[in-house]
Amino acid sequence: MSKVNIAWEGNMKFVGTDDSGFKIPMDASEVYGGKNEGVRPMELMLMSLGGCTGIELGHILNKMRVVYDRLDIEVTGNRVEEHPKVFSNIHVVYRLSGENIPADKVNKALQMAEQVYCSASNMVKKSAEITYAIEINGTAHSYEA
Amino acid sequence: MSKVNIAWEGNMKFVGTDDSGFKIPMDASEVYGGKNEGVRPMELMLMSLGGCTGIELGHILNKMRVVYDRLDIEVTGNRVEEHPKVFSNIHVVYRLSGENIPADKVNKALQMAEQVYCSASNMVKKSAEITYAIEINGTAHSYEA
Repeated sequence: MSKVNIAWEGNMKFVGTDDSGFKIPMDASEVYGGKNEGVRPMELMLMSLGGCTGIELGHILNKMRVVYDRLDIEVTGNRVEEHPKVFSNIHVVYRLSGENIPADKVNKALQMAEQVYCSASNMVKKSAEITYAIEINGTAHSYEA
Repeated sequence: MSKVNIAWEGNMKFVGTDDSGFKIPMDASEVYGGKNEGVRPMELMLMSLGGCTGIELGHILNKMRVVYDRLDIEVTGNRVEEHPKVFSNIHVVYRLSGENIPADKVNKALQMAEQVYCSASNMVKKSAEITYAIEINGTAHSYEA
């Protein structure tokens, strides 16, 4: 069982706390009446998706003995215009850099990560279309699911 | 468009950054090979759900002129045993305290929050069963969706 607690801190600010005590401030934007004193909850969902797939991707690449120096992930989401303003589509780009990174192995590792191991991607894809892309040392490699 | 960036910081640690510069550390548990230097990504999803519904709930209660001193939200999720270990069901409890908080108005506000305005609940419910409960000054009030 996973559990988090979230406490209201006035106006539209909430602070989430996990079992280890990590604190995550959440707030609405000023346009919406918040004070921007924390992350938007919907951006947390994008971080959940990027972090979950990233952890699994790295774990699988380690097992494949694929070594990299950097891994940066960019997650962008487009929302529908009417309430509830759910994400209609989300794009995730994995940017790796390092020597001798085989694109085919990264593609295979990402398949396993996003389709088999990552819980977030397998939940979010039930409501939003998720597309993925891989860049290695600045060169794009189309991802084949 | 919403956008976040996530940078790998070695081993299984990633740090997410939103457009305002808020940084969210994410890491796997030690059992899984991480160092527990951040929140689990799946717990971020629970925070997204609790924070999103909480912000909307508070916003609607304000419009209803319902005043409260505290609002604490507890989110628990049960995951399936096989990969991908998605949440099968999630329970969210809203604990309000204060004088003269009408349970029927809180119920109505939560209906509007979780069904109409909150994007996270409307996405997550496509893959997990979400149940809600309300407590006012320590007394449980069954939530009628």
